[in-house]
Amino acid sequence: MAEVRLQGSEAELENPTLVEGFPGVGLVGKIATDHLIEHLDMRYYASVHCEGLPRIGIYRGGDRTVRPPVRLYVSEAHDLLALRSDAPISAAAVAEVADCLTSWIVEQDATPIYLSGLPADLDDEDSRDLYGIATGNGEEHLETADIAMPPEDGVITGPTGALINSAAREDIDSVGLVVECDPQFPDPRAASVLLEEGIESIADLEVDVQDLVTSAEEIRAKREQLAQQMQAIAQEESSQAKPLRMYQ
Amino acid sequence: MAEVRLQGSEAELENPTLVEGFPGVGLVGKIATDHLIEHLDMRYYASVHCEGLPRIGIYRGGDRTVRPPVRLYVSEAHDLLALRSDAPISAAAVAEVADCLTSWIVEQDATPIYLSGLPADLDDEDSRDLYGIATGNGEEHLETADIAMPPEDGVITGPTGALINSAAREDIDSVGLVVECDPQFPDPRAASVLLEEGIESIADLEVDVQDLVTSAEEIRAKREQLAQQMQAIAQEESSQAKPLRMYQ
Amino acid sequence: MAEVRLQGSEAELENPTLVEGFPGVGLVGKIATDHLIEHLDMRYYASVHCEGLPRIGIYRGGDRTVRPPVRLYVSEAHDLLALRSDAPISAAAVAEVADCLTSWIVEQDATPIYLSGLPADLDDEDSRDLYGIATGNGEEHLETADIAMPPEDGVITGPTGALINSAAREDIDSVGLVVECDPQFPDPRAASVLLEEGIESIADLEVDVQDLVTSAEEIRAKREQLAQQMQAIAQEESSQAKPLRMYQ
Amino acid sequence: MAEVRLQGSEAELENPTLVEGFPGVGLVGKIATDHLIEHLDMRYYASVHCEGLPRIGIYRGGDRTVRPPVRLYVSEAHDLLALRSDAPISAAAVAEVADCLTSWIVEQDATPIYLSGLPADLDDEDSRDLYGIATGNGEEHLETADIAMPPEDGVITGPTGALINSAAREDIDSVGLVVECDPQFPDPRAASVLLEEGIESIADLEVDVQDLVTSAEEIRAKREQLAQQMQAIAQEESSQAKPLRMYQ
Amino acid sequence: MAEVRLQGSEAELENPTLVEGFPGVGLVGKIATDHLIEHLDMRYYASVHCEGLPRIGIYRGGDRTVRPPVRLYVSEAHDLLALRSDAPISAAAVAEVADCLTSWIVEQDATPIYLSGLPADLDDEDSRDLYGIATGNGEEHLETADIAMPPEDGVITGPTGALINSAAREDIDSVGLVVECDPQFPDPRAASVLLEEGIESIADLEVDVQDLVTSAEEIRAKREQLAQQMQAIAQEESSQAKPLRMYQ
Repeated sequence: MAEVRLQGSEAELENPTLVEGFPGVGLVGKIATDHLIEHLDMRYYASVHCEGLPRIGIYRGGDRTVRPPVRLYVSEAHDLLALRSDAPISAAAVAEVADCLTSWIVEQDATPIYLSGLPADLDDEDSRDLYGIATGNGEEHLETADIAMPPEDGVITGPTGALINSAAREDIDSVGLVVECDPQFPDPRAASVLLEEGIESIADLEVDVQDLVTSAEEIRAKREQLAQQMQAIAQEESSQAKPLRMYQ
Repeated sequence: MAEVRLQGSEAELENPTLVEGFPGVGLVGKIATDHLIEHLDMRYYASVHCEGLPRIGIYRGGDRTVRPPVRLYVSEAHDLLALRSDAPISAAAVAEVADCLTSWIVEQDATPIYLSGLPADLDDEDSRDLYGIATGNGEEHLETADIAMPPEDGVITGPTGALINSAAREDIDSVGLVVECDPQFPDPRAASVLLEEGIESIADLEVDVQDLVTSAEEIRAKREQLAQQMQAIAQEESSQAKPLRMYQ
Repeated sequence: MAEVRLQGSEAELENPTLVEGFPGVGLVGKIATDHLIEHLDMRYYASVHCEGLPRIGIYRGGDRTVRPPVRLYVSEAHDLLALRSDAPISAAAVAEVADCLTSWIVEQDATPIYLSGLPADLDDEDSRDLYGIATGNGEEHLETADIAMPPEDGVITGPTGALINSAAREDIDSVGLVVECDPQFPDPRAASVLLEEGIESIADLEVDVQDLVTSAEEIRAKREQLAQQMQAIAQEESSQAKPLRMYQ
Repeated sequence: MAEVRLQGSEAELENPTLVEGFPGVGLVGKIATDHLIEHLDMRYYASVHCEGLPRIGIYRGGDRTVRPPVRLYVSEAHDLLALRSDAPISAAAVAEVADCLTSWIVEQDATPIYLSGLPADLDDEDSRDLYGIATGNGEEHLETADIAMPPEDGVITGPTGALINSAAREDIDSVGLVVECDPQFPDPRAASVLLEEGIESIADLEVDVQDLVTSAEEIRAKREQLAQQMQAIAQEESSQAKPLRMYQ
Repeated sequence: MAEVRLQGSEAELENPTLVEGFPGVGLVGKIATDHLIEHLDMRYYASVHCEGLPRIGIYRGGDRTVRPPVRLYVSEAHDLLALRSDAPISAAAVAEVADCLTSWIVEQDATPIYLSGLPADLDDEDSRDLYGIATGNGEEHLETADIAMPPEDGVITGPTGALINSAAREDIDSVGLVVECDPQFPDPRAASVLLEEGIESIADLEVDVQDLVTSAEEIRAKREQLAQQMQAIAQEESSQAKPLRMYQ
């Protein structure tokens, strides 16, 4: 039953970039991708169905349409695909989701950008460092965009880790962006770094991130409330980058 | 083994409406559907068998006939199908039940009405707001019936959520009715709103709901006793609508 | 691997009755069936093998023969089959056992009598009420035997419930006998009601139940010791009838 | 993957006897079988591989060879096979192990002797009673060897129980020896009863058991240390015979 | 999906030796293998993919390339393969990993050296004893290298145990090196014994282990920090050798 199912007409794309936004630590990938979908007015393109994905219906205020929780959006103008997930992914579903999405990515001739937070001891105002990793020949994109090398060994877990694992196995060209972030709360500031310093250059886009920085203020104001929601995610299979200790 | 099995002669139906009544929060869908079956004197039409559904036998006082717990009823006069479940559905069965019922719905050329409660802070006397969501072209039914749009983002879980998820995947025309309800006790008042403000208009029916309002009084009188029963349901996979928080 | 395997020569039977004796509340079905097998000197006829049934060996004092725990016995003189189980059935095995036995019952052209206790608040000396339920045309047997209708809604669970569920799905003729019983201890008095007021008439048999009434005395004498054994059964999937509450 | 794999040349055997030594209560079967293998200088003959068997390597002091934990040994001179297990068997593996070994036993035309302890309240010096049970025509061997009938109903559990269950299902000739034993500690004295009063006669062998009786002394000396090891086995699926209570 | 997938050009090897480095007690195998890969400048050769292996991505500081956690490295100059695992292996994956790797080893005509720690009561300065075990004709390599026989019975568990189990089942030539080690902390000193007294001679290599001895000092300095990491591994399926007690 694992499949990506088109919802609407097929898009005309040429070697598109795919931005992946599964929820993980600091929600950095989800915030960045949701922001991209909204600001580029991307079209709902396909729904993702794999064993283990939550069988729930999602709707928006002021809109009657119900949709599955994991969806792909498209912008033909930007040769861009974006993966949005409105629910955390259970550990049991991670392997199949990764295999199923990777097959689809290969069919689309797409270059994926995988997004992950790296928990760090940061103040709200601190800058967030960004590192780039890659599979296949993805490194070229990182060099062009002048993104730093990782300073120490690391491991990417969760659905994002599984996707990168599949990309490494298949030796396809992909890019992984790892950004320092708050380990406990949503970190829109880190998401804006992903967009401004990474995605914009690699996917040749421009997107205003001012409201992400503003929302960082709001998040600071309601930290307690968010803490609970983040814990719920943490109990699922949450994507994150972690330093790899010598004897892990 | 997943199948819907006819129990009796095939009905003559033309684009029937199917009202779904799995137990969920406030039991709103089950109360409304059971009421419909009784008041329209609907005929037992088919039993539903899927991996994971409870293998139990149900019988009624004053009647010797034993039946499976999940059943479909029909009224040819009203071009109406109704799904009754006398047992909660386990999380493990939800996906298969949804797939199996959705295939059958497509075969019948039926338009499903999915019913869900939205837990709200309500007094017994408060009015319950009703919202309409849809997949495919289901929206037209909601416009005709003048049912409000959801005011905020939301997610539908449980067997009802899985059914809507399947409908969205298959892009079939379906309607979802979401009614505010008591989060802890059976809420016949909310069920009467589903019937009077939603189902009657969409399915072109009339049904007296006076005794539902009366039973609301009785329920208030034996809240403690019901609380236990509701908890048992809550431990299963209970359908409900919930607000979808920005960073859920 | 699910199968009923003959152990000995095939019996000549014509539309036999099958009495089912899985252990459930009050052990009423097991006590009645074991009694029948012993008093009619029924022959060991077949062993039942399904995924999830206990893989254990059972032997009797003064007899060297080891047998599987779930077995069928036959009396050609009485056109009678009886299902004996010397072990409780795990929830995981219930569905397959029900499907596998129901197929075999259909092949044998047998009319099954399913036996279930209904926990009631009873003194040892109180009479136990008996109710009859049915699938297919099983009702005729109940009318002939003058067995009462159930006075209120109910649900049958456990292996017996699964068997009745299968019979309802297949719409085969079957009878269910529900007898009030002690909720915690073996209740031979209730078993004797099943035999005298139900099975004897439906299967056209006579069997002395005096020693069952006597054993009720003994059981009263060693209640503590039995309580432990019954708890062990309760933790398995125990058959019983229960009232079905309006909002269960 | 379930298979018995020969390790070395095929043996010439004529209706051999197979002594089964899975660890169970009192370790009676394992101690007896290990003793037999050592004293008859039996040759390592085959390894047993089934889903769920421990994937570990076993080696002996003073010997470099590593072997799987469940193994068959052969003595062509005595027309004898012996099953040795150096690890307890998990409940999940019991069914497949029993099916796989029983198929092999049938192919070899072997008569199995299954060994089980029956926990009893015994002093170290007390004699241990031995009982014989059987499937198929195994009873003849017990009569010839003059082994007593079981005095009361009983049930055999664990891997040994599953093997006897399979033998009963297939109606093959097999013998089960049940010996009273210490419920908590290894009981070499009970193992010596199995050998002297049962196996020797049935398999037409002679073997000195004096050192088993001696080791009983040692075991008494280090009971605490052994208790831990026995508990570990008890948590696995441990073979034993138990009285079958009337209403178990 | 179980497979070893080449990542780069096929190597020219003639009966190569394969050194296995799954994490186990004292991390002796992992430390020795990682050291070998680094000091012989071995080339990343293949990734290992089996059901149950962690689906994560691993990267190194100063290098952008992401790789799967279980990988094979090659040195054509030394006719050498090395298995590196940057993550512990779950018990559920052990059997498939062993089968899949063993098939590949047979195809490569490779002689595997399996590495295991044997927890011992040691001071940091104590020498670590080394024992050699084998399957097939692996014993010859041990005799040539003058490696001692195991002084007492033992059992090898974890992924290494499963690999040796598979080798014993297939009766292929393999060697197992068992070294005494610290039961709780990484033990580079024990790893250096594996290299100097075992691997170097069997695989006809030379490698400087001085920095392993130095790192032992560092490890002693940060024992607390490491204890946590080691506990995480212990909860997974950790390879180790253990004495096999008489009645285990």
